[in-house]
Amino acid sequence: MSRPNLALVGATGAVGTVMRDIVSNRADIWGEIRLVASPRSAGKVLKVRGEDVVVQALVPEVFDGIDIAIFDVPDEVSAEWVPVAAERGAIAIDKSGTFRMHADVPLVVPEVNPLDARQRPRNIISTPNCTTLSMMAAMGALHAEYGLQELVVASYQAVSGAGVAGSARLYDEVEALAGDRNVGQVAGDVRQILDKKLPADSPFPAPIAFNVVPWAGSLKEDGWASEELKLRNESRKILGIPELKVSATCVRVPVVTTHSLAVHARFERPVTVADAHRVLTAAPTVVLVDDPANGVWPTPLEVVGTDPTYVGRVRQAIDFPNTLDLFVCGDNLRKGAALNAAEIAELVAAEL
Amino acid sequence: MSRPNLALVGATGAVGTVMRDIVSNRADIWGEIRLVASPRSAGKVLKVRGEDVVVQALVPEVFDGIDIAIFDVPDEVSAEWVPVAAERGAIAIDKSGTFRMHADVPLVVPEVNPLDARQRPRNIISTPNCTTLSMMAAMGALHAEYGLQELVVASYQAVSGAGVAGSARLYDEVEALAGDRNVGQVAGDVRQILDKKLPADSPFPAPIAFNVVPWAGSLKEDGWASEELKLRNESRKILGIPELKVSATCVRVPVVTTHSLAVHARFERPVTVADAHRVLTAAPTVVLVDDPANGVWPTPLEVVGTDPTYVGRVRQAIDFPNTLDLFVCGDNLRKGAALNAAEIAELVAAEL
Repeated sequence: MSRPNLALVGATGAVGTVMRDIVSNRADIWGEIRLVASPRSAGKVLKVRGEDVVVQALVPEVFDGIDIAIFDVPDEVSAEWVPVAAERGAIAIDKSGTFRMHADVPLVVPEVNPLDARQRPRNIISTPNCTTLSMMAAMGALHAEYGLQELVVASYQAVSGAGVAGSARLYDEVEALAGDRNVGQVAGDVRQILDKKLPADSPFPAPIAFNVVPWAGSLKEDGWASEELKLRNESRKILGIPELKVSATCVRVPVVTTHSLAVHARFERPVTVADAHRVLTAAPTVVLVDDPANGVWPTPLEVVGTDPTYVGRVRQAIDFPNTLDLFVCGDNLRKGAALNAAEIAELVAAEL
Repeated sequence: MSRPNLALVGATGAVGTVMRDIVSNRADIWGEIRLVASPRSAGKVLKVRGEDVVVQALVPEVFDGIDIAIFDVPDEVSAEWVPVAAERGAIAIDKSGTFRMHADVPLVVPEVNPLDARQRPRNIISTPNCTTLSMMAAMGALHAEYGLQELVVASYQAVSGAGVAGSARLYDEVEALAGDRNVGQVAGDVRQILDKKLPADSPFPAPIAFNVVPWAGSLKEDGWASEELKLRNESRKILGIPELKVSATCVRVPVVTTHSLAVHARFERPVTVADAHRVLTAAPTVVLVDDPANGVWPTPLEVVGTDPTYVGRVRQAIDFPNTLDLFVCGDNLRKGAALNAAEIAELVAAEL
């Protein structure tokens, strides 16, 4: 068949920018690549595959002739427009939280559950939350060998998970505080400085420079943050383990891009560090960086801008049977968002 | 009896500075307060209780007439000098890792195991690692009511845990990087900037500004970092639970002072969030800050410079019985170091 046409909806945001970079640099299988954004951004000219493309406004007709549409827009925009794209004949790949847990919408990580992408009665496929995605390739590979049963996760989430405004806020706060060598030594001091120098409307509920904030998302039942429940529910669906036990605490840290996770994972079968190293090395999209004797483990700054999931600090839990402790890093804008959606699009395009 | 004489050994370091502040501001029960440091620092004049005190060199005679000596010095200095102080008749309170796990040396957190301080055949009492201490008051209170069985911990450790050099390095890196709005968006970029602008001898094994580093301490068996094993072994000893199951991943974050911990704690008996709130509120040195509907939880910047252990984000684990997930913050230089040692000294002084 002729090359499929791709629409990128939300082309001007943080993930949209990475998405244009990714589709420009991966094997070019696409016919037209149409850029779509809110009417406010329509008319902007952006580069894709080295060419200037004029951004079009999000209207129903924009999906005419489109085979696959990737959405990176807020939940409420997805709720309205993803079904429109699907009704117009496009296969919609949605990055938002809107459809992820719908029984008739698959939630896909191509290296973990590619076959799920074929069951799409509504022509909608969801791609997971960026925090869940940061560990999925690694945990999927280990699950396939050892049978995952329990996950206890603590996250170290980058500010760009809150979009362009998140990164800007961290840079602004760092600039406002740089040079003051009492910062972080006196309670309340930082907030006074920031209140004087910066607008109050931060995307974060507390100062983020020189701080960590144990909150991501919105408040759900019993004190849980939405991000923590997503990590639980999405992991269960992607891995196909409805009874997987998960507890997560999500924490924002002053890192620009790349989420990290400390993971405590219990398996059905015994697993040694050597076993885990072998499985993780064999997983195509996982990079094992685990040699603490030589100071080798992953950190966000070394991972940013790259595609794989990086795993290090693999240890056999001393007191828990069949359990590994490990540290995982993944670029939240690439594998955590744009890359996974692009990979799903390629997977779907291959069967068109 | 007359007021006991106190020696502060290591009076010029990061913890020593906080220690002078603490003994100057708590109820004054001391006769002489003698400041002791390496011969290099001897002769310096420092303030204690509003008075100038000349720092004395660490020699055996410096302990003559001293009733209690608090040591905050490197492990190898403690190994040599703590027994000297004890032999000269002082009760030595040691902050280093040297004696903590010795069977004939108690490891004491005054609000958790005060009676242990009385069993000191060598006249040495150890005070725990700052990371362990960050959660001990809270976990001790919950253990007393519900019987702690398992702990899975991920840490968010401040740079001042690595001393004055740790804080200085973070400030230096932030200054070198401030104003560059590409920082953290391109892999390797930050390292290139820092290599040009800063000395290579960081106290941390990777850039710490705009980064998190999953390593604290030295390499021990099977890939574990010393800090992670300390958290396990010291928690067992302080709480008096030799069979306590513990897994920890220790991570350094770009926070100046105050360690935070994400804790997943399983108990022998059922415990609700309301139960935990009641117990934590009743614990004298714990402050409960847990109202996410109003954006209330602890962050390091709000805790620094204060004495209590702060607890928030208390949640009942959805999939694990008798289990709480929570987030704890404590100033690593105060309760995590100087304050706990000062409290032990007061406890011991009360029975002299």
